Amino acid sequence: MEINRRDLLKGSAAILAAGGLSVPSFARDGDPLPSWNAGPAKQAIIDFVKTTTDKSSSKFVPPEERIAEFDQDGTLWVEQPLYTQFLYCLDRVGTLAKETPELKNREPYKTVLSGDRAAIAQLPTRELFEIIVATQSGITVEEFSADVKAWLTTAKDPRWKRPYTDLTYLPMQEVLKYLRASGYKTFIATGGSTGFVRPYSEQVYGIPPEQVAGTAQAFTYGYDKAGRPILTREPKLVLDNLGAGKIENFWLMYGHRPYAAFGNSSSDDQQILEYVKAGTGARLSAVVMHDDATREYAYGPAQGLPDTKVGTLSQEMYDMAKKQNWIVISMKNDWKQIFAWEK
Amino acid sequence: MEINRRDLLKGSAAILAAGGLSVPSFARDGDPLPSWNAGPAKQAIIDFVKTTTDKSSSKFVPPEERIAEFDQDGTLWVEQPLYTQFLYCLDRVGTLAKETPELKNREPYKTVLSGDRAAIAQLPTRELFEIIVATQSGITVEEFSADVKAWLTTAKDPRWKRPYTDLTYLPMQEVLKYLRASGYKTFIATGGSTGFVRPYSEQVYGIPPEQVAGTAQAFTYGYDKAGRPILTREPKLVLDNLGAGKIENFWLMYGHRPYAAFGNSSSDDQQILEYVKAGTGARLSAVVMHDDATREYAYGPAQGLPDTKVGTLSQEMYDMAKKQNWIVISMKNDWKQIFAWEK
Repeated sequence: MEINRRDLLKGSAAILAAGGLSVPSFARDGDPLPSWNAGPAKQAIIDFVKTTTDKSSSKFVPPEERIAEFDQDGTLWVEQPLYTQFLYCLDRVGTLAKETPELKNREPYKTVLSGDRAAIAQLPTRELFEIIVATQSGITVEEFSADVKAWLTTAKDPRWKRPYTDLTYLPMQEVLKYLRASGYKTFIATGGSTGFVRPYSEQVYGIPPEQVAGTAQAFTYGYDKAGRPILTREPKLVLDNLGAGKIENFWLMYGHRPYAAFGNSSSDDQQILEYVKAGTGARLSAVVMHDDATREYAYGPAQGLPDTKVGTLSQEMYDMAKKQNWIVISMKNDWKQIFAWEK
Repeated sequence: MEINRRDLLKGSAAILAAGGLSVPSFARDGDPLPSWNAGPAKQAIIDFVKTTTDKSSSKFVPPEERIAEFDQDGTLWVEQPLYTQFLYCLDRVGTLAKETPELKNREPYKTVLSGDRAAIAQLPTRELFEIIVATQSGITVEEFSADVKAWLTTAKDPRWKRPYTDLTYLPMQEVLKYLRASGYKTFIATGGSTGFVRPYSEQVYGIPPEQVAGTAQAFTYGYDKAGRPILTREPKLVLDNLGAGKIENFWLMYGHRPYAAFGNSSSDDQQILEYVKAGTGARLSAVVMHDDATREYAYGPAQGLPDTKVGTLSQEMYDMAKKQNWIVISMKNDWKQIFAWEK
């Protein structure tokens, strides 16, 4: 029997816990969230974990119900100036335009091929979707995964000159680990494509592909030239994870109302955060507010900052957060450090 | 930290294994499949597990890739004379007909309300689907789960006079446990409704709801009279798990080609078994053949037995199984005992 290193660690922690200890081992030795500043956001996360894992608490949650959901873009990693997945698709539009030259005169491809990033960022979400779907079709599911992986090893963010997978937020990585060490299963629910995130989710977030839900295209079963069965990506949406779609599809995929949910954007996190918070018992809904122009980006009309059309936090969603006692995480004030490689 | 008993056991096994042991602990002490007769089917399952979990094997499978898929009806539990889920829906048609009396004169409802089980069993699969969708709509996801659970506590199979959840196959329960003890994650992929299976999957099979994929209806986000957010089941299919749909949707849900797959029916297992077997490395595709009229049921044209239209094993699928070296499991010859409560 092969040893799964994570299971071994998990098992060791469980066996230690069986000896009477009541907190995850790494938390005993110190702070489970070291890159967070002390404050109401950090405290609320720790209180939530303690309450839901303490068997004597009236809000104890049995292990099989411990489900935590995370948006990706703007919640787990940087989403400005454009969604990373979209940058990948831009590279693929070039390939597509070579095969189908008439695209050069057709919107939204024309704007994309112009290379004008400000104009591209202003394209309506549904048009971005059309590009995403068109550029991610006509290849097998396995070829697509390999292509995403290859792109991520070479592409770099122009501001930090680093691979995009380096741009995950250290404080959120700590939350993921803290929740898992406390018996939570962690899931990604993204407005982006499932097939884009899965190839790196385990390596980058410790979240296996089967726990990643997103906007999903149809696959068609068929055979290659050698007669081997294949699944081909089709230019047709099956699951649309925008708006209320994220929670509708989360239930469809996993059959749970999460106990904790983290998001940042009105375009796809508002309903899932509302739904989570409305559940019985202790529930944690948290919104990451981008208010740190120096260390990351500052945007969102709820704070009187520019509406970048990418990861917008509307006034309505902000008011809902305050009224329903969600946690509002200020990147500027709550996070001591943003990225793991800093300093 | 609460102790998850399964994690503890799993952890203990991993720690024991770290000491140099190479098989799951229960298998060391004896037979991992005690209710199976010795024979090629049993041997093939054991060989598959040994090969894929032995680090020195060229066909070793890393733990994160160990995914095993199981059909439910006719593979994990009895599907004759009608699918259990359909029996549940029949009870709901009565309720529906009271609300909408004109259904009484409309097919397929007319046949269903006639109570003629032979005629009901002959309804085309798509019409059965229509009934399933219609009877499982207009209520919230949580109300639906509660209703399924309540029905299962009272409904009984007329032949054995037992709850349907007692009609799972002991040999297959052993396979589920054996695979999990060997580091495999087990999933159900059913032609039936996801929402029907999830309420009992953990208790009956040890498979959590998030690892159950099936035919799925749309949900709509809205608010109840008290203003609380709810998800309502809609009479509209989003994922159709029949035919090639089962493997197309398995990839959509989980992003894996399973290493092992178990099924029994041409209507929804043929393509997934073919796709699994066509993967690289050691792959196990297995078909349960219903050939035991005394202890269970005997049916299927591949054996020259009656085509019951429920869980049909066609000649084409049987030939494919033989040609591609799937395991064909004979209930009559390979299974020493069918149900846990026998004897």
